[in-house]
Amino acid sequence: MAVEIEHKFLLANDGWREHVHRSVVYRQGYLSSEAHTSIRVRISDEHAWLNIKSAVIGTHRQEYEYEIPLADADEIISQLCRKPLIEKTRHLVLDDGNLWEIDEFAGENQGLCVAEIELSAVGQTFRKPAWLGAEVTDDLRYYNNNLVAHPYSQWYYKD
Amino acid sequence: MAVEIEHKFLLANDGWREHVHRSVVYRQGYLSSEAHTSIRVRISDEHAWLNIKSAVIGTHRQEYEYEIPLADADEIISQLCRKPLIEKTRHLVLDDGNLWEIDEFAGENQGLCVAEIELSAVGQTFRKPAWLGAEVTDDLRYYNNNLVAHPYSQWYYKD
Repeated sequence: MAVEIEHKFLLANDGWREHVHRSVVYRQGYLSSEAHTSIRVRISDEHAWLNIKSAVIGTHRQEYEYEIPLADADEIISQLCRKPLIEKTRHLVLDDGNLWEIDEFAGENQGLCVAEIELSAVGQTFRKPAWLGAEVTDDLRYYNNNLVAHPYSQWYYKD
Repeated sequence: MAVEIEHKFLLANDGWREHVHRSVVYRQGYLSSEAHTSIRVRISDEHAWLNIKSAVIGTHRQEYEYEIPLADADEIISQLCRKPLIEKTRHLVLDDGNLWEIDEFAGENQGLCVAEIELSAVGQTFRKPAWLGAEVTDDLRYYNNNLVAHPYSQWYYKD
């Protein structure tokens, strides 16, 4: 079990694009939308994972992850996961020794970009790059499982 | 992925007890109670599994199962699964070449016993032992995940 301490931000501009280290396409779905736990199946390249996260709002989340057979993941995503699926490209960006994960969404969440940083301790400080926008760590709408029920393309108010 | 074809029965009497081949104690919980899928974490002896089942009512169910670390399972069951947990002893009984799994529940489902047989094909026939009671395959109340929300000890009408 790992306890996640992550902070989530919008992007102020496209400045991050010239610092992309690597990009990976994700296709993922959620098996559960219950208040306390999210259960996700994710396919990336030729690998697949099942992930269980406690849905505590904010920066602390309990997380468990297990690799599962790609064929199983494909069936579970197509047949059992809630629709629409989450499709996104994750860009890895290094800034001042910190690793940022920038998710650029596609499909029904096209137009949304979110940057995340994972810290090793509560209260750890980090430099905010010039391309970083408003923090949305506590904003439920930006949780990937909520982007299934309420995709970005259907939002009336967009920050 | 395996497709389960199983039939579930109540027990008419205790005649099965003298044919028990092996008994295993299970402690399990559910992460999701959504209509279409159940997600279960089960501990038995020193092993633990995560199981995903499509919740199609009746004899056909899609099923995926992955072994996970015991310590993870223990945390997930204690902290993330819905309560009460399902506690039961599974007795394996051989009858006429068929394997019956008889679940004897404890905790909040104490008093309930259910026998299950898993068939390899739809329509496969099998001998009904003298200790077998009414079939409850299609009765939602006997699904383990429903025994969390509505434990047997709280039922008003018991068959």
